[in-house]
Amino acid sequence: MNNDWEADIQTLLNNTRIAFLSTQGDKSPETSMCPYAVFQDDVVLHLSALAKHSKNIQQHTQVGLMICSPETPDKSPLALPRLSFTGHIETVPEAEQADYQKAYLQSIPDAEPLFSFPDFTLYRIQPLSVSWVGGFGKARKIPLETWKSLC
Amino acid sequence: MNNDWEADIQTLLNNTRIAFLSTQGDKSPETSMCPYAVFQDDVVLHLSALAKHSKNIQQHTQVGLMICSPETPDKSPLALPRLSFTGHIETVPEAEQADYQKAYLQSIPDAEPLFSFPDFTLYRIQPLSVSWVGGFGKARKIPLETWKSLC
Repeated sequence: MNNDWEADIQTLLNNTRIAFLSTQGDKSPETSMCPYAVFQDDVVLHLSALAKHSKNIQQHTQVGLMICSPETPDKSPLALPRLSFTGHIETVPEAEQADYQKAYLQSIPDAEPLFSFPDFTLYRIQPLSVSWVGGFGKARKIPLETWKSLC
Repeated sequence: MNNDWEADIQTLLNNTRIAFLSTQGDKSPETSMCPYAVFQDDVVLHLSALAKHSKNIQQHTQVGLMICSPETPDKSPLALPRLSFTGHIETVPEAEQADYQKAYLQSIPDAEPLFSFPDFTLYRIQPLSVSWVGGFGKARKIPLETWKSLC
């Protein structure tokens, strides 16, 4: 790791557990909040079929996602470091579910009981584009190879 | 105000300064982070023409937006109170800009220097739908009349 921004991305991933998902609804894009994990180089989500985002991704599998440093009173809301993705969301194949579940629960242990709920499904997003904003005016595209090296 | 959830919505609005905007990009919805204010019953944003979301809303004015309690180590990421909107985004008309700017700067004083940057524009979203999640499994639609009474 040669750059400050690579270390900053890893700090963000280490210190956050929620992401903001954009899905295409009937009339407009919609934002929802989802706990997340990273496994291999996928973003892993565990979504309820009862939630609107699950209905939306049945129709449109292209999604956007943001992971953002939490706001605090002492930080400027203009300069919060954040990572954004676009990609295709799909259910995790049966044969890989145990590994993805384990990785997800390492990040989100509170979700353990939800794995016995029949309406919850594990999904993965394989990023097609990754962008980083390190502060006000500090934006850059992250090559997918770099993203993979950070996971 | 008769309900706990109405008080909880006002607490969320009082304690947060950032929102997560969903816009329609060329290939997929995209999430971005924007400082926000509420004025009258509109959500007010101040966006740079250089940012991807500004390009997106030139093509598609229907957007989604979420305001979420910041994550902290002691709160479950499954249960963070959050408010989501869909609506149409538009530039604030010239004659109303002074009032909207004043309201925005009351919430986001750090943005004051940006009002002299030529690429920044004030936008407003008039909500078409509002939903509230007060915790795990506690979701409800908020009638627009109720939203207006909370602003």
